[in-house]
Amino acid sequence: MNRTAFDPTLYLVTDADACGDRGVAATVRDAVAGGVTAVQLRDQRATTRAMCRAALELLEVLAGTGVALLVDDRLDVAMAVGADGVHLGQSDLPVVAAREIAGRGLVVGWSVTNLAEAAAAAALAPGTVDYLGVGPVFATATKADAAPPLGLDGLRAVCAVSTVPCVAIGGITAARRAQVFAAGASGIAVVSAICAARDPRAAAEALRGRAAGQAVAEGQPAR
Amino acid sequence: MNRTAFDPTLYLVTDADACGDRGVAATVRDAVAGGVTAVQLRDQRATTRAMCRAALELLEVLAGTGVALLVDDRLDVAMAVGADGVHLGQSDLPVVAAREIAGRGLVVGWSVTNLAEAAAAAALAPGTVDYLGVGPVFATATKADAAPPLGLDGLRAVCAVSTVPCVAIGGITAARRAQVFAAGASGIAVVSAICAARDPRAAAEALRGRAAGQAVAEGQPAR
Repeated sequence: MNRTAFDPTLYLVTDADACGDRGVAATVRDAVAGGVTAVQLRDQRATTRAMCRAALELLEVLAGTGVALLVDDRLDVAMAVGADGVHLGQSDLPVVAAREIAGRGLVVGWSVTNLAEAAAAAALAPGTVDYLGVGPVFATATKADAAPPLGLDGLRAVCAVSTVPCVAIGGITAARRAQVFAAGASGIAVVSAICAARDPRAAAEALRGRAAGQAVAEGQPAR
Repeated sequence: MNRTAFDPTLYLVTDADACGDRGVAATVRDAVAGGVTAVQLRDQRATTRAMCRAALELLEVLAGTGVALLVDDRLDVAMAVGADGVHLGQSDLPVVAAREIAGRGLVVGWSVTNLAEAAAAAALAPGTVDYLGVGPVFATATKADAAPPLGLDGLRAVCAVSTVPCVAIGGITAARRAQVFAAGASGIAVVSAICAARDPRAAAEALRGRAAGQAVAEGQPAR
């Protein structure tokens, strides 16, 4: 299978609730038009079959865009639908086992929430994980069970020890974009900032730093 | 990996709630001592990591017993822990995709709840599924979203069209055992009948038809 390369610059994590009546597929389509470079399908309540259907729908939306699709938690779903990768949390499959099953062809991402987990990731055999999801960097209401925020200093420390690209997640806004990249992140991941936006395309453009004349200009202090 | 052959004669599906304080591992150990021939780990609420841990614990309990361990729904977990197989429902991974990922080494079981699903299973390429879970045969309180009971006639019809062994599930008791096998089942699967039993070993013995002098003797009409 011909897999799409993973570009972490602006990584959209889907949330069906936040996407609302617009739906996940339409949100993703618009967000990609606005500059999203990677998409993670995340739905912790769907049945496996429903998740397969949703993933296949997104693969169709993403066909020809060069945007990779990853699946949260479910390596089996990722492999069954031919997605480009899987994103694993600390409560998901052990990444070593996942890499063994997936082989070299799939992107494997791993969430780290603190420096100790980042050090554990750095100690893995090269090629076990392809990137780290690092967060929450800022406080976020999206994930009820999120760890304490790392802050920009915490993010910087994690990026410094990591042997793979780091994607910052948690409370990232267009206004915080520059600070996050300055701390060493290779990309930013968002959920609500795009899924709950009235205009996902404009939201993505702003998060890419492309929206000249935005009320909140890039590089300004957060908030 | 050396996998254990799947013997469907008495197939225990675990339920952590029903096992209660005794725990799943102790229940399985006792049930195997009583004659359980296959075990399916089922936990639709656990995190992936917790499911891996539970599966590894059961693999330890089952080591050397010749009893196969299957994992409900989660092919990724089954592969990650080196279980013997996976059991898929109609809302889980498509079985063709699962077989492709799993290769020949894993047992793949599939739930069918009616004759149409059984016919679809029979139309699959040989080797796609290794057995069918057929049910509910009788009404059961264990599965809230269960389909309407097939009854013994429905079970007989499914067994007649199936190209693989059929394991009957749903309201199976020691008293109903003989009827179910007479209808063409190669095995019986139970959840509460063992997990919620005060003595899982004795319950398993009765379900194997080994407990002479039981109040409810084998072959008697149900209820």
